[in-house]
Amino acid sequence: MMNKEVTLEPNERLDDLLTHQLHIIQSREVFSFSMDAVLLARFAAVPPRGKILDLCTGNGVIPLLLTTRTKAQIDAVEIQPRLADMARRSVKANGLDDRIHIYEGDLRDFYKQSGHGNYDAITVNPPYMPAGTGDQNENEHFAAARHERNGTLDDIVAACARLVRTGGRVAMVHRPNRLVEILETFRKWKLEPKRIRFVHPHAGAEANMVLIEAARDGKPDVKLLPPMIVYNEQRQYNEELMRIYYGDQAPEAGTRDSDK
Amino acid sequence: MMNKEVTLEPNERLDDLLTHQLHIIQSREVFSFSMDAVLLARFAAVPPRGKILDLCTGNGVIPLLLTTRTKAQIDAVEIQPRLADMARRSVKANGLDDRIHIYEGDLRDFYKQSGHGNYDAITVNPPYMPAGTGDQNENEHFAAARHERNGTLDDIVAACARLVRTGGRVAMVHRPNRLVEILETFRKWKLEPKRIRFVHPHAGAEANMVLIEAARDGKPDVKLLPPMIVYNEQRQYNEELMRIYYGDQAPEAGTRDSDK
Repeated sequence: MMNKEVTLEPNERLDDLLTHQLHIIQSREVFSFSMDAVLLARFAAVPPRGKILDLCTGNGVIPLLLTTRTKAQIDAVEIQPRLADMARRSVKANGLDDRIHIYEGDLRDFYKQSGHGNYDAITVNPPYMPAGTGDQNENEHFAAARHERNGTLDDIVAACARLVRTGGRVAMVHRPNRLVEILETFRKWKLEPKRIRFVHPHAGAEANMVLIEAARDGKPDVKLLPPMIVYNEQRQYNEELMRIYYGDQAPEAGTRDSDK
Repeated sequence: MMNKEVTLEPNERLDDLLTHQLHIIQSREVFSFSMDAVLLARFAAVPPRGKILDLCTGNGVIPLLLTTRTKAQIDAVEIQPRLADMARRSVKANGLDDRIHIYEGDLRDFYKQSGHGNYDAITVNPPYMPAGTGDQNENEHFAAARHERNGTLDDIVAACARLVRTGGRVAMVHRPNRLVEILETFRKWKLEPKRIRFVHPHAGAEANMVLIEAARDGKPDVKLLPPMIVYNEQRQYNEELMRIYYGDQAPEAGTRDSDK
């Protein structure tokens, strides 16, 4: 275990991120990160130095994971005060205050404090569903994480286009059923898709996740990367997933060490 | 062998389509069908009856293969006189004159003789490259098959949108690097992508082919089908490919019976 100071609110727990001794504050009542965020943090091309921005950061899982891949300064924006506070305490708990800054606020207004085109790369794991769809009985935290209550896809892509520099990269994870709208919106805001990867739960299953990376003012020409298949035929994580989750300390491929 | 009358021009050969005793006239100097056409003919959703149209039909391989899946009337358009003639002779050689009609002409003008919205489904394996790119020393037949000399992607999609009925389907095979442009063009012409499948030569390779099916005036919501992986780790066709090529008469999976 780590020896940094950690403050936990009621019903919060400190989880092991299973890589580089990182830990994160989560809460079943408020927010827990998903595989989507982990895969995005690995998929995104990040500069070794410079400035990275994570939008819709939630409890800050993507910035925390990115510190294992880059020395860049990482800013992150979260609109929910409770989540921004959890993210700040997680950053502090990992002793990363000098590398990650959490901003509580609306991503649509963030350019007012950050200026235009000041980031080399942006990551974003936005809500997947339009406002007013799906389960209307969720608590407010889940509703805001899953539905576009605080900005539509168009608002979010527009913010990315405004905040990233020319030639800089924007990486997003989303649901494949909205692929056409996503690509169209990226292109509308001069973010040209360059790399796309689909994630399938099994080799014979439809994709349930898509990772997309675009370049600001890039040239049209996109690569469709090899499919990522999450589970093998024994219903265990595939080797690639094991490497992503456990990195160099991976236990034998195909097993999941939940006691770690 | 079949016992229909076949007329072959110099340097033409009669190939076995390996399914339902179908045969096709090909020529190394003019045109031979590719895996792309075979996969499209299997991927496209076709009505059991009604009217189907194949654009850029080449030597007519897609209409011939579709006769094994439907009783629909199949029209096909080819702009190159030499290829339209080969396609007509292949149709005759298979005794399918009553089910397939080959039209020599420009797909951009075809609505003048067919009217608007008269097809239930359209298939198209268009040239993949914009005019003026790639090898400029090809012979005229290959150049016209590979480059958009007789209509751009936009012209071709526009023709599909004009010729298919409301709710009807348009299926296309193309190169993934133009994915964004393709989806944008489909949507521009009110053809909403509903099913997409990527084809990867190997499990760990980028996609080199994409199959897309759209519905005229459809609702936005697209399925990303399981990836198609062409070769297994032994560099042999995967089971699915064997089934597509050989159907019920498939030899043992993983072998290719080229003497058949």
